[in-house]
Amino acid sequence: MEKKNQEEEEQIVTPWEVTAEKGGKIDYDKLIDKFGCQRLDQSLVDRVARLTGRLPHVFLRRGVFFAHRDFSDILDAYERGEKFYLYTGRGPSSEALHLGHLVPFMFTKYLQDAFKVPLVIQLTDDEKCMWKNLSVEESQRLARENAKDIIACGFDISRTFIFSDFDYVGGSFYKNMVKIAKCVTYNKVVGIFGFTGEDHIGKVSFPPVQAAPSFPSSFPHLFSGKDSLRCLIPCAIDQDPYFRMTRDVAPRLGYHKPALIESSFFPALQGETGKMSASDPNSATYVTDSAKDIKNKVNRYAFSGGQDSIENHRKYGANLEVDIPIKYLGFFLEDDAELEHIRTEYGAGRMLTGEVKKRLIEVLTELVERHRRARAAVTDEMVDAFMAARPLPNMFS
Amino acid sequence: MEKKNQEEEEQIVTPWEVTAEKGGKIDYDKLIDKFGCQRLDQSLVDRVARLTGRLPHVFLRRGVFFAHRDFSDILDAYERGEKFYLYTGRGPSSEALHLGHLVPFMFTKYLQDAFKVPLVIQLTDDEKCMWKNLSVEESQRLARENAKDIIACGFDISRTFIFSDFDYVGGSFYKNMVKIAKCVTYNKVVGIFGFTGEDHIGKVSFPPVQAAPSFPSSFPHLFSGKDSLRCLIPCAIDQDPYFRMTRDVAPRLGYHKPALIESSFFPALQGETGKMSASDPNSATYVTDSAKDIKNKVNRYAFSGGQDSIENHRKYGANLEVDIPIKYLGFFLEDDAELEHIRTEYGAGRMLTGEVKKRLIEVLTELVERHRRARAAVTDEMVDAFMAARPLPNMFS
Repeated sequence: MEKKNQEEEEQIVTPWEVTAEKGGKIDYDKLIDKFGCQRLDQSLVDRVARLTGRLPHVFLRRGVFFAHRDFSDILDAYERGEKFYLYTGRGPSSEALHLGHLVPFMFTKYLQDAFKVPLVIQLTDDEKCMWKNLSVEESQRLARENAKDIIACGFDISRTFIFSDFDYVGGSFYKNMVKIAKCVTYNKVVGIFGFTGEDHIGKVSFPPVQAAPSFPSSFPHLFSGKDSLRCLIPCAIDQDPYFRMTRDVAPRLGYHKPALIESSFFPALQGETGKMSASDPNSATYVTDSAKDIKNKVNRYAFSGGQDSIENHRKYGANLEVDIPIKYLGFFLEDDAELEHIRTEYGAGRMLTGEVKKRLIEVLTELVERHRRARAAVTDEMVDAFMAARPLPNMFS
Repeated sequence: MEKKNQEEEEQIVTPWEVTAEKGGKIDYDKLIDKFGCQRLDQSLVDRVARLTGRLPHVFLRRGVFFAHRDFSDILDAYERGEKFYLYTGRGPSSEALHLGHLVPFMFTKYLQDAFKVPLVIQLTDDEKCMWKNLSVEESQRLARENAKDIIACGFDISRTFIFSDFDYVGGSFYKNMVKIAKCVTYNKVVGIFGFTGEDHIGKVSFPPVQAAPSFPSSFPHLFSGKDSLRCLIPCAIDQDPYFRMTRDVAPRLGYHKPALIESSFFPALQGETGKMSASDPNSATYVTDSAKDIKNKVNRYAFSGGQDSIENHRKYGANLEVDIPIKYLGFFLEDDAELEHIRTEYGAGRMLTGEVKKRLIEVLTELVERHRRARAAVTDEMVDAFMAARPLPNMFS
């Protein structure tokens, strides 16, 4: 029994479940070891700065994207003058995105701008239809709604192709799905994803759908004749299992293994024990939240590392390791100097939780307001344009 | 061990393996019991004659198509003035078809003509790519070659849509694949198809691909707004497992269960112990065989039920139950009276094996010659026309 309880308490990170060890936080070092990816160290960040001639994104400077696979190969190739393409995605399971959902897209937009490369964004409406038991129509509607939020992140339409699986699966994409599926046994996907015999075969069939965009020939309207083009996938680290599988298969199909650059999870307001729960609206700030919602949620629910009395706080300072307002500012406060100032003052007890929360409310309100304005400007015609399978004439310039 | 040997000797009928009990023939009564389908009795054959106003096909009169599921429901609906559509298919694993491959198509052509209904023909190039480890390109090439043989069977282009999975999977068809996959657990497909953990997930993913054409919404260019249209599937009985699964799923998706009309297997020249072996060219007559090939194969390899000496043959007569020339004539000699005459004379020993084989050689040579001429007339443009996803304007008239 002792043994069993220990196992139950181990952290679990799969595309469908993220649970820390009991009472603790996700141990990302352990995850890197377990998954077999590499830590994204300062020398790589410096190299990105040098190659792109711009300050690396906050998420890179502050270790939000903290792990990778073969990212250095991408940079080597880029340095030799070879381009690559970006691939990211989203499972459209809900209408309103929260800030954690924006993280990979904000980062991907930065990569697109910095490296001037094409980008494909997969909306896995088929996955959500199967996992969440949504109707095909509802999954497709959510995919389109989510596409508007994604477009609102500022992607360059001349370099970006957004597609939903229900729209796009077929042709060369389907051929790659079949080629990938041929290379992966059922035992293998059980080992990677933990499927059971009672899971439906739609689940077993899905990994090749998420793998296929890693190969340029899945997009003949973009990459015809460019089978040796490399792919870089920015994603949260819970998606790593899909791409471990994809990387195993790639050489057998004559493709480069896709490279990955992987983020930690955006913490829930209540504290850093995993991903946010879509079923608890108070665990996250949504892009649809009003200024009042944001203020309420941060003041009421954001877990504070401050002490329980002003007296103790002045004496011991805040515990920054568990403080959610500090974590959130680390994601969204651009100004390094200001963040450092707040960390110092708050950690020393000279700044109070209320003051830090006030600053966070300002930052989030501005971010959400900006997103809302950008999303309101996204028309149905723009969605159609981003989702049309078309050439991207200037994608490598 | 005794028990194990007994089990090993049981007949096996799956889409990939047909093996009789050791030393015996396929026991079709047992198969009907095991699969849970119904015997196609004389009253149904008479009803087909009455409803279509024509002599039923040889394969119906002589019990080649011997089993069914809900075929009487199709006839009930037809009698009420409701139409249906036909769905059949082929896995394009080889370039040259043998006569056994033609059986379902010859019968389907008859059904199309007799009931004046539309027909969809699926070429599962994806399946063969996965099972036979063919390249995508080779599977597609074989699909197109096989389409020519199928077209040569005389299908009405104004009522027939032929498609290959690699070409056609996508859109509404893919949506149905996903809906079907959601309803079938891995344990279920293991029970139906006998997959193991070492099988690749392409195999596990395939059953919904073969199931999808059973639902009219997989063909929006044909059956838009006709979701209640019934489907009748003529096929060899080894395909029954796919459609047992499909019929389980149908009501949960709001469709009629597809009806089936199922044939026995076309016997090998060497005797009736299963399907023919694609790897032994002498086990079958191919549509590409010359008159000389046919003559040689029938004379050398066709298993005879005649006695070992003329004296004994005159005395005891031929054993028609095991005689392959008689079986083949049962498939392809149109004239009931002539067939009956040969059976009587041969069974009584008044006719010799050589004479029966001679008549069979004539019949097969004429059939193959007719097929060869028809196939030579099939142009690439005709293949394109049959395989274009287009409306069939007169499909129900």
